[in-house]
Amino acid sequence: MFAPNSISPSINPVRRKLQARKLPNVPHIPCPRRPHDEMNRRSGSTSETRQTQTQTRHQPTHSSSFTPSLRRRNTSVSLRSDPEQANAEATAASAEHVIHEEIAEIKRYEDFTTIDWVQDAAREQLRRRARRKERAGVWERADGRGLSWRGKVSEAYDAGQAWIVVTLVGAAIGLNAAFLNIVTEWLSDIKLGHCTTAFYLNENFCCWGAESGCPEWKRWSGFWPINYVFYILFAALFSLTAATLVKSFAPYAAGSGISEIKCIIAGFVMKGFLGAWTLVIKSIGLPLAIASGLSVGKEGPSVHYAVCTGNVISRFFDKYRRNAAKTREILSASAAAGVGVAFGSPIGGVLFSLEEMSNYFPLKTMWRSYFCALVATAVLAAMNPFRTGQLVMFQVKYDRSWHFFEILFYLIIGAFGGLYGAFVIKWNLRVQAFRKKYLAKYPILESVTLAVITAMICYPNMFLRIDMTESMEILFLECEGGHDYDELCDHQNRWHMIISLAIATVVRTLLVIISFGCKVPAGIFVPSMAIGASFGRMVGIFVQHLHESFPSSAFFAACEPDGPCITPGTYAFLGAAAALSGIMHITVSVVVIMFELTGALTYILPTMIVVGVTKAVGERFGHGGIADRTIWFNGFPFLDNKEEHTFGVPVSQVMASHIISLPATGLELRALECIVNENQYQGYPIVEDANSKTLIGYIGRTELRYAIDRAKRDQLAPGHAKCYFTASGTGVDSRTLSSSIPAVTFDTMSATSSSLRIDLSKFIDPTPLTVHPRLPLETVMELFKKMGPRVILIEYRGRLTGLVTVKDCLKYQFKVEAHENPQQGSGLLDERQEMVWSVIRKTAGWVDGKLNWVRKRLRIGGGDIRLLSPVSPGSGAEDGGRDAGLGRGRDSDEGVDVDVEVELEERGRRGGR
Amino acid sequence: MFAPNSISPSINPVRRKLQARKLPNVPHIPCPRRPHDEMNRRSGSTSETRQTQTQTRHQPTHSSSFTPSLRRRNTSVSLRSDPEQANAEATAASAEHVIHEEIAEIKRYEDFTTIDWVQDAAREQLRRRARRKERAGVWERADGRGLSWRGKVSEAYDAGQAWIVVTLVGAAIGLNAAFLNIVTEWLSDIKLGHCTTAFYLNENFCCWGAESGCPEWKRWSGFWPINYVFYILFAALFSLTAATLVKSFAPYAAGSGISEIKCIIAGFVMKGFLGAWTLVIKSIGLPLAIASGLSVGKEGPSVHYAVCTGNVISRFFDKYRRNAAKTREILSASAAAGVGVAFGSPIGGVLFSLEEMSNYFPLKTMWRSYFCALVATAVLAAMNPFRTGQLVMFQVKYDRSWHFFEILFYLIIGAFGGLYGAFVIKWNLRVQAFRKKYLAKYPILESVTLAVITAMICYPNMFLRIDMTESMEILFLECEGGHDYDELCDHQNRWHMIISLAIATVVRTLLVIISFGCKVPAGIFVPSMAIGASFGRMVGIFVQHLHESFPSSAFFAACEPDGPCITPGTYAFLGAAAALSGIMHITVSVVVIMFELTGALTYILPTMIVVGVTKAVGERFGHGGIADRTIWFNGFPFLDNKEEHTFGVPVSQVMASHIISLPATGLELRALECIVNENQYQGYPIVEDANSKTLIGYIGRTELRYAIDRAKRDQLAPGHAKCYFTASGTGVDSRTLSSSIPAVTFDTMSATSSSLRIDLSKFIDPTPLTVHPRLPLETVMELFKKMGPRVILIEYRGRLTGLVTVKDCLKYQFKVEAHENPQQGSGLLDERQEMVWSVIRKTAGWVDGKLNWVRKRLRIGGGDIRLLSPVSPGSGAEDGGRDAGLGRGRDSDEGVDVDVEVELEERGRRGGR
Repeated sequence: MFAPNSISPSINPVRRKLQARKLPNVPHIPCPRRPHDEMNRRSGSTSETRQTQTQTRHQPTHSSSFTPSLRRRNTSVSLRSDPEQANAEATAASAEHVIHEEIAEIKRYEDFTTIDWVQDAAREQLRRRARRKERAGVWERADGRGLSWRGKVSEAYDAGQAWIVVTLVGAAIGLNAAFLNIVTEWLSDIKLGHCTTAFYLNENFCCWGAESGCPEWKRWSGFWPINYVFYILFAALFSLTAATLVKSFAPYAAGSGISEIKCIIAGFVMKGFLGAWTLVIKSIGLPLAIASGLSVGKEGPSVHYAVCTGNVISRFFDKYRRNAAKTREILSASAAAGVGVAFGSPIGGVLFSLEEMSNYFPLKTMWRSYFCALVATAVLAAMNPFRTGQLVMFQVKYDRSWHFFEILFYLIIGAFGGLYGAFVIKWNLRVQAFRKKYLAKYPILESVTLAVITAMICYPNMFLRIDMTESMEILFLECEGGHDYDELCDHQNRWHMIISLAIATVVRTLLVIISFGCKVPAGIFVPSMAIGASFGRMVGIFVQHLHESFPSSAFFAACEPDGPCITPGTYAFLGAAAALSGIMHITVSVVVIMFELTGALTYILPTMIVVGVTKAVGERFGHGGIADRTIWFNGFPFLDNKEEHTFGVPVSQVMASHIISLPATGLELRALECIVNENQYQGYPIVEDANSKTLIGYIGRTELRYAIDRAKRDQLAPGHAKCYFTASGTGVDSRTLSSSIPAVTFDTMSATSSSLRIDLSKFIDPTPLTVHPRLPLETVMELFKKMGPRVILIEYRGRLTGLVTVKDCLKYQFKVEAHENPQQGSGLLDERQEMVWSVIRKTAGWVDGKLNWVRKRLRIGGGDIRLLSPVSPGSGAEDGGRDAGLGRGRDSDEGVDVDVEVELEERGRRGGR
Repeated sequence: MFAPNSISPSINPVRRKLQARKLPNVPHIPCPRRPHDEMNRRSGSTSETRQTQTQTRHQPTHSSSFTPSLRRRNTSVSLRSDPEQANAEATAASAEHVIHEEIAEIKRYEDFTTIDWVQDAAREQLRRRARRKERAGVWERADGRGLSWRGKVSEAYDAGQAWIVVTLVGAAIGLNAAFLNIVTEWLSDIKLGHCTTAFYLNENFCCWGAESGCPEWKRWSGFWPINYVFYILFAALFSLTAATLVKSFAPYAAGSGISEIKCIIAGFVMKGFLGAWTLVIKSIGLPLAIASGLSVGKEGPSVHYAVCTGNVISRFFDKYRRNAAKTREILSASAAAGVGVAFGSPIGGVLFSLEEMSNYFPLKTMWRSYFCALVATAVLAAMNPFRTGQLVMFQVKYDRSWHFFEILFYLIIGAFGGLYGAFVIKWNLRVQAFRKKYLAKYPILESVTLAVITAMICYPNMFLRIDMTESMEILFLECEGGHDYDELCDHQNRWHMIISLAIATVVRTLLVIISFGCKVPAGIFVPSMAIGASFGRMVGIFVQHLHESFPSSAFFAACEPDGPCITPGTYAFLGAAAALSGIMHITVSVVVIMFELTGALTYILPTMIVVGVTKAVGERFGHGGIADRTIWFNGFPFLDNKEEHTFGVPVSQVMASHIISLPATGLELRALECIVNENQYQGYPIVEDANSKTLIGYIGRTELRYAIDRAKRDQLAPGHAKCYFTASGTGVDSRTLSSSIPAVTFDTMSATSSSLRIDLSKFIDPTPLTVHPRLPLETVMELFKKMGPRVILIEYRGRLTGLVTVKDCLKYQFKVEAHENPQQGSGLLDERQEMVWSVIRKTAGWVDGKLNWVRKRLRIGGGDIRLLSPVSPGSGAEDGGRDAGLGRGRDSDEGVDVDVEVELEERGRRGGR
């Protein structure tokens, strides 16, 4: 059931095998002194050499477990088998297949790299063509009498694979969502009381069918301080469990995951982020985190576990195991289903996936997303976890329509949404920078502390105490028709309510800022909506009060006399939409989600107005939603589609011009090997010779590595064997121009006439994307965004002059931004962070002292809840759980935080811009 | 108020001026014998030469009106003015501006070409950079004290221009929609009766507030045959007016326009299609066409007039007048607003624009569309044309939710939608092929005949007689709650109703097939929905009957006993969704539009299921929706994003390899002129020399033409002057690699040392997109789709080897398709068409005879309603209106039908595939 890529590398035979291959069969020949210096005679100082550095985490020369038997078994279809003429072709095809498979296998284990969409698409084309040929073969065999049923089934299976996968994924997501809903509700209720008839029932089910009152459901005690303590204890317990699970088994399950998934869908590879362990832990941890009362929501994590499900299931299918770009379609569809089940809003999910998750969203993907969301919500509806038979979460029916004068207040709500978003994003990024710097070592402690603080603060306020979803439901209701919660509609209570709601708004906002990003599964959708709803209701009650105070004013002329005119519930509804739009910077999806949530369709224009204002205000005060800012903060290589830049420079300003290129002919194997070993570039352009630098093609690091290993192993090639990257060894002649040889083929190496000659031409990409050095940088960035190559070569009159990657573009963009908005007070910020940290440490020390005193009294041993020891954050006083993870966490734990940021690390410090 | 480009060319001074320029100042030198033969010595037979043929309709050598005064006035900023050192730079900048403006002006008048998105984007970048520099200048002048208020306002204006345009466009669309709604309703009602209190009131307003009965509204007579005759006469009158208007003033206003707009948004240029005349005629003709009772809808035309509005208004703004690619954003937004006001469904409009109209839909455009649709619907709501205060057109409230067993019937409805779509598309295309071949000469007669036939057939059926929107409203209602129309809910009437609905479904389908595409403004959305609704209601009544017959069956176990269980109205609702999805092949937008139309949110899952099934069935039986098929049928150069092809050939198989390229140095002016005059290619690659063919750049035909004319005019260059396309005259040296000269600049020509030397380097694009000849064709097509260049050059090791355009790709694709699906019976089809035509002619002759008899009796003179004269369709017996159009129709009338199709004309014959 688990995706192979989530299994620990130390127990993965394929990986071990691949690593083993790096130990050469032939004796290691010491590298000649900087062979590529000679090749790049014309390039100035090699110290300046940039190029795509690989960020693979496995050291190429480190692995040592060598398993010859495994190796042999897999490569038995090598060319050393006796070649019979009849079988030669079949063997060649089979060998090609093996090579193709093996390279694909290796690529799956490359962490923190990006997909080459162009190459992947070419490979998919090849696969289809092969299938078509195969089919044609079947036709011939059947003597034109049509396909055999077997052929037909196989063809249908291939065509329908995508639909099968999407259906399975949708169903799995729906089931998981139903499970989560039930568990979350039970856990949330258990904090307040329990069911005397059956402990596993939540309040709703316990009291099912009860007309008035519900004696079966008991609070923990009749005395409120005891309830308070129970509430806090449960919160601490839940958050402790969630954080421990996350830390021990799947560090990637922390947080919302939306920004990482955005990058992954755009082509970034993050090993394990979408693995089975992440899926399991996220599914278990999410109900705990929500029930702990932390100001976190379930929607972001829903997207994450949905995408994990999509990834895990698609791995079982051939088509997707091979093609990373194809898999992205399934991931987009899963994301749609994730939002769909979280909000009961399938169309909203599709639009969310379109607007927020995917940088490229072809109609085919939209259609897949539609289907996946449909299946997921249908399964959820069939499971019917709430026994309401409704998908609409907060069914509301507003009796009255809106009046034009209310637009004034809608504008206020819209502006609030925008400001809320800008404020929370700014401060949350600062908190995250602080967290990264000081709190990275104490994830569990941090979560528990936050949960305890949240519980302590929230219990007294009637809107903060209950579940956020529940509070939204209450706030959305209109006052007519017998709905009332704690005198929310009471005329006398009005000012009390306004104050209460204002407190709820402010407190919840602060809690969201410090909670979002802590190391439990945590989203920010629902908290934001709850904040918006409380603010909106506050405005609504105020307007209602205004109307009732001045019923005959000209301003309220549109109201019918002698009757209620203002529906505060609609203001809450609009406030929720505004806050959601403000934090995520999405528009159309918010409107659709709000309708699917509530069914309040007559309010479509107000909602659109509010969201529009929010978007405008948000754009004015910030740059992108929280997901985009987090990506920026973490320095992922992600080109944002939404941003538009005017650099006014040609690509030659940005490209790496001192690059290592390989001559097409005559390079010795050992020299080649040294080049690969000495640097970590992702690939190498191939030129005719070092002087002319006429571009021939491009070879990826993985393919080159594989080719070298294979040459040494299968051909027993000595170090002085010459490598040839062109088919004829003397350059491609013009005849190839009209030949129909496809661009990317992988064929086995043929040991031609002399065994000292290694033909590597089948491993290169002969048609890399190239551009002119004077092409504007913006156009090149468009090429990256829309075509998605890993690298673009710069060619001037047939000669290689440079190379550019997404990272080069991002670095330049960052430089320009830094130049335009010079950041002052970075030192000041550091100082403040230090100050806050010392306060926290002192408080922790004090609490620790107190707790020690309690511990001694109660004789609780084991020190499981030891607090911060008074050491500097660098020296690694880390509590348990780390090593308990069976090594699963090891590989990915520090990934995001350490590696990717190497070059863009300044951003971290400027988090709070 | 009118967009300049809709004004007749014969009275357009700019155009006259531009044409005048083609008359050279210098005496015409006869062309040397095929100068490009010498340049292309290596290319085989020049007869095979393909390349992008221009399809501009003005003959370059034809125009003769020469107006020196006009010419002089405009070019006074030439370089012949005395150059003072201080002002030199300003003059140069100004001159550059003039050149830029003039070329942009010329380009606007090029018909049937495509936009080069890459160049347009580059130009926009330049514009922004210039603005930024300007701004920086302002800063300096203000001594760092910040911008002056003037500068600030100008900056804000530039930034906000898009929003101003979108707001204006939205408001205009909303107003127009309100006007259309009122007029349409009045016209529809006048067919049946009139208001005695005030003739300009429709039935609703006439009877406003009337409790029961409405004596003010009178039928034309108490005797039904007279009503019948009135009904037919009004239908004939309305369609006659609409068709005459369309034919005389704006032939492009006919039909729905969606397929053409798709091409236009993708970058195709169709002069006048979005002009002010089209807007006016479409707005007047649409109510007439709908009121005439033809089976046509208002949604397609709504999109068309909305996009016209967007085009006309954006022309008043500098930013959009210059940049055709930018204008496309506004067009997308307008399309969204058009659907938004047509259905009262702003979000649905945005999604429709995304799913159907735009091949590339960045988030920025989505946000513009959102805003535009919001403004348009808000204005419409404020105008409140129906006085209901509701945007929701058919407010329905279904009391009951759905049951799982109903999914079985939903599947049937979904399948119906798919089959309906496939059937209608197939036969409508055949009818269109027939129309094009035989009926093109009789557009007015055709429309009137169709209207009369429709009226005659439809009057007897209760569902066909009334307006389609109204009939849908009735069919959607549930039976409970006192809604009833003509015993639709009556138990006794059930079988009668089922038969009546079946007839309505079949008859309406046939009418849609023959009506859609006739020469009045006509959409296919609403007719399809009405057909779907009648089919759905039929199924619903049948299921209801089934349930009432077997209430205790296990199948109906989910129903509550002793009560109604099935709501036939929901089946009608789902049927409408299915048919709409089936005909257009859109999914998400249909679901959202249906909700916004009705507010029936609890039915979201059934709707999604139905639409899903429809889509699957539709994909099985057809290739794309009616808009896509129409594009294919008309042979527009449009690369469909939805289609995926596996050709498995490199681009070298498709490219034009025998192309005319210009040597960078030393070509004589007269030779250059001959090349331009002798062929109509859209542009020419520039190579270092004919032997090496090292690629230097690319020059568009427009720029080259302009440069030549200017050289001859301003520099009085003789024919033997040498032209240089490179800056130094000896090729670009490597120094330029790191220079920051932007890619596309237009500068004035400098007469260097010798006046016999013409520098054209500023007119070329030095960085055209180039690819390797072995790049797979699919990747090249992706480049076209995503980057949108007009041409891609094929470069092999720095040497030009070919050139490829969208048309080359489409031609290849067509060839492959034709090879895969060999078309038989094309002759049979022709035969059948001929047969149908002879039947029609005989009928027409017979009717004509009868009418003549009537005419003689009634002494109606003038022969205004003369029918087909018995001549062959080729000989052009055309009735009036053609010459009455002040020449407006002349330029664009045959455009689509004749020109674009030249190369892909086979498709027309294969229309009914």
